[in-house]
Amino acid sequence: MNNSKKIYVRGQHHDIKVAMRQISLSETKLHNGGIELNAPVTVYDTSGAYTDDEIEIDIKKGLPRLREAWILQRNDVEQLSTVSSVYGKERKENQALDHLRFEHIQKPMRAKEGFNVTQLHYAKQGIITPEMEYIAIRENQLINEMDGQFAESTKMLGTQHPGHSFGANTPKGFITPEFVRDEVAAGRAIIPNNINHPESEPMIIGRNFLVKINANIGNSAVTSTIDEEVDKAVWACRWGADTIMDLSTGKNIHETREWIIRNSPVPIGTVPIYQALEKVNGKAEDLTWQLFRDTLIEQAEQGVSYFTIHAGVLLRYIPLTAKRVTGIVSRGGSIMAKWCLAHHKENFLYTHFEDICKIMQQYDVAFSLGDGLRPGSIADANDAAQFAELETLGELTKLAWKYDVQVMVEGPGHVPMHLIKENMDKQLKECHEAPFYTLGPLTTDIAPGYDHITSAIGAAMIGWFGTAMLCYVTPKEHLGLPNKKDVKDGVITYKLAAHAADLAKGHPGAQYRDNALSKARFEFRWEDQFNLSLDPDTAREFHDETLPAEGAKIAHFCSMCGPKFCSMKITQEIRDSAASGLFEKAEEFKMQGSQIYS
Amino acid sequence: MNNSKKIYVRGQHHDIKVAMRQISLSETKLHNGGIELNAPVTVYDTSGAYTDDEIEIDIKKGLPRLREAWILQRNDVEQLSTVSSVYGKERKENQALDHLRFEHIQKPMRAKEGFNVTQLHYAKQGIITPEMEYIAIRENQLINEMDGQFAESTKMLGTQHPGHSFGANTPKGFITPEFVRDEVAAGRAIIPNNINHPESEPMIIGRNFLVKINANIGNSAVTSTIDEEVDKAVWACRWGADTIMDLSTGKNIHETREWIIRNSPVPIGTVPIYQALEKVNGKAEDLTWQLFRDTLIEQAEQGVSYFTIHAGVLLRYIPLTAKRVTGIVSRGGSIMAKWCLAHHKENFLYTHFEDICKIMQQYDVAFSLGDGLRPGSIADANDAAQFAELETLGELTKLAWKYDVQVMVEGPGHVPMHLIKENMDKQLKECHEAPFYTLGPLTTDIAPGYDHITSAIGAAMIGWFGTAMLCYVTPKEHLGLPNKKDVKDGVITYKLAAHAADLAKGHPGAQYRDNALSKARFEFRWEDQFNLSLDPDTAREFHDETLPAEGAKIAHFCSMCGPKFCSMKITQEIRDSAASGLFEKAEEFKMQGSQIYS
Repeated sequence: MNNSKKIYVRGQHHDIKVAMRQISLSETKLHNGGIELNAPVTVYDTSGAYTDDEIEIDIKKGLPRLREAWILQRNDVEQLSTVSSVYGKERKENQALDHLRFEHIQKPMRAKEGFNVTQLHYAKQGIITPEMEYIAIRENQLINEMDGQFAESTKMLGTQHPGHSFGANTPKGFITPEFVRDEVAAGRAIIPNNINHPESEPMIIGRNFLVKINANIGNSAVTSTIDEEVDKAVWACRWGADTIMDLSTGKNIHETREWIIRNSPVPIGTVPIYQALEKVNGKAEDLTWQLFRDTLIEQAEQGVSYFTIHAGVLLRYIPLTAKRVTGIVSRGGSIMAKWCLAHHKENFLYTHFEDICKIMQQYDVAFSLGDGLRPGSIADANDAAQFAELETLGELTKLAWKYDVQVMVEGPGHVPMHLIKENMDKQLKECHEAPFYTLGPLTTDIAPGYDHITSAIGAAMIGWFGTAMLCYVTPKEHLGLPNKKDVKDGVITYKLAAHAADLAKGHPGAQYRDNALSKARFEFRWEDQFNLSLDPDTAREFHDETLPAEGAKIAHFCSMCGPKFCSMKITQEIRDSAASGLFEKAEEFKMQGSQIYS
Repeated sequence: MNNSKKIYVRGQHHDIKVAMRQISLSETKLHNGGIELNAPVTVYDTSGAYTDDEIEIDIKKGLPRLREAWILQRNDVEQLSTVSSVYGKERKENQALDHLRFEHIQKPMRAKEGFNVTQLHYAKQGIITPEMEYIAIRENQLINEMDGQFAESTKMLGTQHPGHSFGANTPKGFITPEFVRDEVAAGRAIIPNNINHPESEPMIIGRNFLVKINANIGNSAVTSTIDEEVDKAVWACRWGADTIMDLSTGKNIHETREWIIRNSPVPIGTVPIYQALEKVNGKAEDLTWQLFRDTLIEQAEQGVSYFTIHAGVLLRYIPLTAKRVTGIVSRGGSIMAKWCLAHHKENFLYTHFEDICKIMQQYDVAFSLGDGLRPGSIADANDAAQFAELETLGELTKLAWKYDVQVMVEGPGHVPMHLIKENMDKQLKECHEAPFYTLGPLTTDIAPGYDHITSAIGAAMIGWFGTAMLCYVTPKEHLGLPNKKDVKDGVITYKLAAHAADLAKGHPGAQYRDNALSKARFEFRWEDQFNLSLDPDTAREFHDETLPAEGAKIAHFCSMCGPKFCSMKITQEIRDSAASGLFEKAEEFKMQGSQIYS
């Protein structure tokens, strides 16, 4: 598709094959009649087996279990005879659900008694897992290989601007497996990959790596079906989602999730309190620790790789929200606030936090510490409620690390540009450099229908400042549930925001693709320009709207100026002048002094 | 439309009526059964007479000549018996063009011999023109009147964050006519309003005012007609364009421009070299000062309010572009570069700069000093060519001021986030605080089809840093000519970017609209939320896609969560708890010490 193919790069420490996508480019026709080869561009690929022609896809069977052998080789897990959660058993035994159920459910795996199976646990012991090596290879995007092979033709493509080094701890221009391990061990990065989701391809979330994006999907009581949600998940990965959060709140959450996980090449996150609330018919005050605990186990054994846990919504913080313009806008946060007030008790997610850690370490589920008090409007940004919760999340981060459970921390919402950096700085300080995972932030409140854009502005900025993963916002935010078009718009918008952040951070591999695309643009290699873009289909479609003829795609002009009048064409003539010595004359002119007016 | 109406606010110094749009809001239903009034929100309105039901629109006659009396009262202009330009006369006398020509062309006005009719000239003499008072009233958006009348109901809407004052020179929270005059006199702001475009409503471009946006339209050799371009201009103003640039490069540029100006409520800018090039059949080397001069006069007498003049593309800067990834991407810049090289001479726009000033002061046409060497790719950002030209633009700014000609300076293009601020800082320094007018910048090269978004990120940031006007980019950038949908997408995207910048700068009137919309959102006043948004049609349409029933727009829930499960609803219950004293119990809990883990 789009002149690209799936390639696999072999590991050196482990027997692994890392999937990437390689875009082939056409050659440049030089003015002297010669040609110049253009190096293929290899890009990070989240689309999974769906874009490999060699692999047969069957949604009913699920994806190949890529990591299963790696997990079993570690000899620290056991396969359970059946699911451990009460609710999971009920659903399994309910024949009325047979028609909804994924057919090939595997028995769940869990750490053997006394073992801890988290990547953080391995990293702290100095172990480089296959997951870590996979990530190191994946993050590099093969730029080194290309630099060697095509050094000559890429020489003039420009380099990083000096003075911007990419993270003090990053090996210059190259991510090693050791570096991945060390970042995980330090808590600065997480590898969300539950042992019960062996289909997922390893990926890392940390500020010294490529900025990642998450796409939310999920049905609600009002609308949508299992098929639609699985389709949206695959579609989101196709366009670049690095993780998917299943935020379903409607019927058959359990069965929907199974289908999504079995068919997802990326890690899945959830907010378990949503399902717990459904189990008590939407009455927050009826929630109990026992019920919640059972839900965690249910979801961990299905293969969810990170849980949003709103353990920082403390009883004493709730009054801080009463005078806000938009109160509490996080669903999880408002559920817990209601529970706290109904019982006059501290949040049970906080009081049982260590119990939660003990569950999560058995499956390698990572924490995404929820920002239940995030601001829902510009007026509420960076207020006492928001920052009080952030401090508690920092306290909980340390506690999770005591159990070697991986942690990232959720943030923003609505924040004007001048208050964004304060969020990042405070998070790094309070949360001990655990990865930050932010929604947007939206930089104004006045553009419903365009909030993918209001938030992409904030997302790009906070990504530059150090946020490791950006939670996308679709054009439907505040208005309705996203359809497939909205999901794609949200993913592409966040992909470009993340890339803008990678460029600004000086990520060693980031600018290569821009340079290749710009070179193609300048040389009127239209097909290469389309193929190198984040969304070749749309780029091609927009071009053809004005100039549909096939010949226009090899023409040395474009629709903006027409054939007679083209700035890029004129620049090529300037280069020819350079070759013919005209600039020496210009130099003479300079020597005579040409600044007329000063 | 959208529960808003056109209102007119009278001046105090002058007999003027300033057009604004006032959005009426519904009342809030309180839990205790009472109601709370919500103040109407008055917003800056660029749509002109087209949205005033009282005014009859006839495209063939053009808009009412709002400023004509103000101009004549100054007694410094004369009406010419016919147009002064050779080309203008030819077109006028060519009967073959009769069917294309606007029917009611007025005779042009020009400064009387020895007079200077620029707003800068008046400002320097301490005069407050009707234009300046109009602008002062317009920029305030009536916030003070509202603050008085509805102080009670808006009390809890939050205020500006402390510590961010909006420009050291801005009167706290209120723009006065004196302030407008002083900013213009200092060269920090311009009022583009050619005496031959009396239909235009006064507006100001300067960093101590609301950030403005420009929309480009114009036909090309490849496509589009006069009708389409007039329609696009009106459409762009409808959605918020503060100025329009007519960048036509195809046939009948002269006649197209007349139609656009006569029907435009906002100032029109052009790049005169485009038309000059058409007059020499696209051969840059055939351009002459005489021909260009005639083109300036032709356009000035039609009513163009600012000219992009690429006078900073000096012969000695051209070799600096030869090794760029994308050379020279500005059309005007490449034309001048080609001319310089063909003749081995310095750019005639530079050598004749004072002659140009003498023409522009006779009509009050402002300079938009063109950035002919702006970077067309991330790799070329902030390079020697770009910054050398910027220094020359600073030199020319001072020269224009010598003639009391208003000046703004063009900038960016493609610039990664971490290099944006350097542009703004350097422009302020080199160009003596003349207003900056930037294209984007685009913060990555890899998203053709989405460059309204890649550039909105950069635009919002540079607007925050001090850019006075943002030139929009549409989704078709790099790919094709924008259609009406693209124009609207570009305008709304830039409107939200400009607003994000106004918020970040702490503009006294900016946050009011966000607060009103967020309050409406929180209280489920769906219609108010739509009406307060930048694009009510799209907001309403997106909402109705998920919940089309009319009842859903008065429902106390939305499609994201459904009726049982709504965070905003829960927050309202928390507020009720606050009223009933529950928080005192929470306070007790705090006193006992609740931080369990630390």
